[in-house]
Amino acid sequence: MMRIGIVAPSCPLKREAAQQAQALARVHGAELVVHPQCFLEDGHFAGSDAARLSALREMMADETVAAIWFARGGYGSNRIARQAVQDLPAGALNKTYLGYSDGGFLLAALHKAGARVAHGPMVQDIVREGGEAAAARALAWLTSSDPAALEQGLDGPAFAFNLVVLSSLMGTPLQPDFTGAELLVEEVDEEVYRIDRFLFHVTSQPGFAALRQLRLGRCRVRENDRPFGQAAEAVARYWCEQAGVPFGGRADIGHDADNRIVPFPVIKDPARHS
Amino acid sequence: MMRIGIVAPSCPLKREAAQQAQALARVHGAELVVHPQCFLEDGHFAGSDAARLSALREMMADETVAAIWFARGGYGSNRIARQAVQDLPAGALNKTYLGYSDGGFLLAALHKAGARVAHGPMVQDIVREGGEAAAARALAWLTSSDPAALEQGLDGPAFAFNLVVLSSLMGTPLQPDFTGAELLVEEVDEEVYRIDRFLFHVTSQPGFAALRQLRLGRCRVRENDRPFGQAAEAVARYWCEQAGVPFGGRADIGHDADNRIVPFPVIKDPARHS
Repeated sequence: MMRIGIVAPSCPLKREAAQQAQALARVHGAELVVHPQCFLEDGHFAGSDAARLSALREMMADETVAAIWFARGGYGSNRIARQAVQDLPAGALNKTYLGYSDGGFLLAALHKAGARVAHGPMVQDIVREGGEAAAARALAWLTSSDPAALEQGLDGPAFAFNLVVLSSLMGTPLQPDFTGAELLVEEVDEEVYRIDRFLFHVTSQPGFAALRQLRLGRCRVRENDRPFGQAAEAVARYWCEQAGVPFGGRADIGHDADNRIVPFPVIKDPARHS
Repeated sequence: MMRIGIVAPSCPLKREAAQQAQALARVHGAELVVHPQCFLEDGHFAGSDAARLSALREMMADETVAAIWFARGGYGSNRIARQAVQDLPAGALNKTYLGYSDGGFLLAALHKAGARVAHGPMVQDIVREGGEAAAARALAWLTSSDPAALEQGLDGPAFAFNLVVLSSLMGTPLQPDFTGAELLVEEVDEEVYRIDRFLFHVTSQPGFAALRQLRLGRCRVRENDRPFGQAAEAVARYWCEQAGVPFGGRADIGHDADNRIVPFPVIKDPARHS
């Protein structure tokens, strides 16, 4: 039976989400190894930085675990992302890592370290409306690489990120090399003017121009006292045009039950990219 | 009588703010030249990008205007910042430019183009509580370089920015060369977890490590459903420590009537910095 490790690098996991996911995993012939750190609380976070880092590193070193599935997002994985990939434990690169939202900081760090990572549903998605489908999609992909779980239309190297998370890692050592890849972004609970500002920031970086195209996932926008006057897609088209990167249309990713899986390319020689 | 041009590169100016500021300017022996663009409305903005850019460029080219005082912040100056400094009109570098908040994008662009810019109160601050003092401080500095208007404790090159604006220009061509300077940041209406994320982003950039020190202005934080567990100052100290840049304590800047003026260094040879 495939063992899948669960850690919470950002905010704490709900116990009922862990229980429901455990039951669903059995249907997929897998067992979830839920680290007790998932239920810690320390201010905003699922335990201190040290506790979250230690749980993650422990799971990364566990040779009996084939994949690490992030419990949920929120905020905080950036605080441990660089340390997480220093002096990688043996076996850390034989695993698959799955998550999104705030987990994007870790996806970026693990990708640059040479790991197999993917942007897709997390454990706590199971308790959102229709969320069992999201968790089942994640498990189908983790246990049997089910192609039906994937974002459609992927035809080359691809990256996917929550937009504010991507903006917050651009220019830092976590920024991926986007050369020749497509980039999918999604957003939740941000005003359109912020989406405009994040897209200004991301598309104005030298590294952005190397992309093959940008696609826009779902953006659940927050109302603002001043209506922006444009929808998120028009904003994405505008900034792509400014940067000279083709806008490739929409993507089936977002903070919802339909969120599809986007595997990142695996770097063969991570030292050259670090 | 000194003429001070008013344009609104972000959101529209309130007419009563313009009127009150005009009356106050006369007390300081100055006349405000309020461009009608200040009162345009186009979605989020004080007119279209083209209208805001054109008004700014017109004022930059006006040889009878000694200074340009930004009307207010909001959002949008980033959309015209790069074009604003292309093929500078004659006389654009003989002026002083004053603003803050969203205006920081323009301050950065004008600074890199070789202009004399400063972070300080804007016209619309006059209608906030106690705001006449803020406007009087700005006018005293614009008309007579009053040293009492300045941030105290400046003893070398300094930059000041709203934190989210700074985060949104890091890594773009607008990012200043911070070598040997101190950096003052302030924030308003953001949750502490966002301040943490912006500081992660800013302090993780290669260009940040060249700073002499960081100081923290006032941060009016927004409550979050998850209390963060640390105040903004502890967060700033933490990220400075991570980056190896000294934390220099607090600064008397912020989105309030006490906001002091921080002139940026003037670049002698802007071509080398562009």
